[in-house]
Amino acid sequence: MTNTESFAIPFDSRTGLTTDRKPIQRRLSQMQGMYANGTAYAGLLAQGDALVYEFYDLHLPESEAAIAFGTTITYPGKVGDEYFMTKGHFHRVLATAEVYHCLRGHGYMLMESPEGVCEAQVMRAGVAVYVPPRFAHRSINVSATEPLVSFFAFRGDAGHDYGTIEAKGFRKLVVDRGGLPAIVDNPKWGM
Amino acid sequence: MTNTESFAIPFDSRTGLTTDRKPIQRRLSQMQGMYANGTAYAGLLAQGDALVYEFYDLHLPESEAAIAFGTTITYPGKVGDEYFMTKGHFHRVLATAEVYHCLRGHGYMLMESPEGVCEAQVMRAGVAVYVPPRFAHRSINVSATEPLVSFFAFRGDAGHDYGTIEAKGFRKLVVDRGGLPAIVDNPKWGM
Repeated sequence: MTNTESFAIPFDSRTGLTTDRKPIQRRLSQMQGMYANGTAYAGLLAQGDALVYEFYDLHLPESEAAIAFGTTITYPGKVGDEYFMTKGHFHRVLATAEVYHCLRGHGYMLMESPEGVCEAQVMRAGVAVYVPPRFAHRSINVSATEPLVSFFAFRGDAGHDYGTIEAKGFRKLVVDRGGLPAIVDNPKWGM
Repeated sequence: MTNTESFAIPFDSRTGLTTDRKPIQRRLSQMQGMYANGTAYAGLLAQGDALVYEFYDLHLPESEAAIAFGTTITYPGKVGDEYFMTKGHFHRVLATAEVYHCLRGHGYMLMESPEGVCEAQVMRAGVAVYVPPRFAHRSINVSATEPLVSFFAFRGDAGHDYGTIEAKGFRKLVVDRGGLPAIVDNPKWGM
């Protein structure tokens, strides 16, 4: 993709998908170590390698002049009492923001800074969430039935740092407590 | 709005509006000189000062770390055979891109570079349009009945240069030709 020509991508408003590009898919087997309950994770994985989420990388130029964008779809499901979620990441250029515009579903955007400031915003169809510069971010689907579909946009050169979260996790978890989502401390954070 | 806290804004998926903020409104009287047919413009204005479009400026930090975003709504209507449209602008930091995700309606994103490269993309619900760096851009509603509603995102420090377009216009117009939209040369360009 060059940076000198316009283009258009038709995303399906219900599914968030487009037939124009191939999404990047993350299955349960690729989420090893990311859920607090390892026994529940192994049990669920034994039943099949569920699709947890998918998103598009449209290969915009990795330039501060470009805006990278696409859709991300997190499917309904739970590992124990922890809802299906994206891996989550910091931007490689840490001080760059992102915006998510939720198109369908019900979920949370969970965020945290390197210094440990934790924030969460509720996502529902129509809600736009601003992820400030320097905040790691993860989408979490708390619906039992509907996918969580969002449109996202960030600076073209921001990049992704997945390693920090893979190593330490988020300080908070979003879990099912009697049928309602609750934000709780992550007992395994940093381990 | 600081750049260190997240926030969420609920936009209505049908109208594109939010009750959380006050939109910036552009009425017909503020579009003086922007339509090719001055007589039709004066005639329509005499019937009332129609709302042509509205959009949100959420006052994100004017920083290259931030992402400015919001919705823009262009209403159905015509001035002579020229469809209702936004004023259109370059970014003050010229080499910065923008993305528009169309949520409702039918229209065009009209674009042109300072060197005169002209591009247009069709907008329909679900379609995301990439406006490359250095391209002026204008939304045009070609529906007779529905608003054209889009979500947009660009770099926080990009800014707006309206003056160039106000002085010269776009090189192309989108006009009604027998009930169908056509992209034609602007006979008044540069004048």
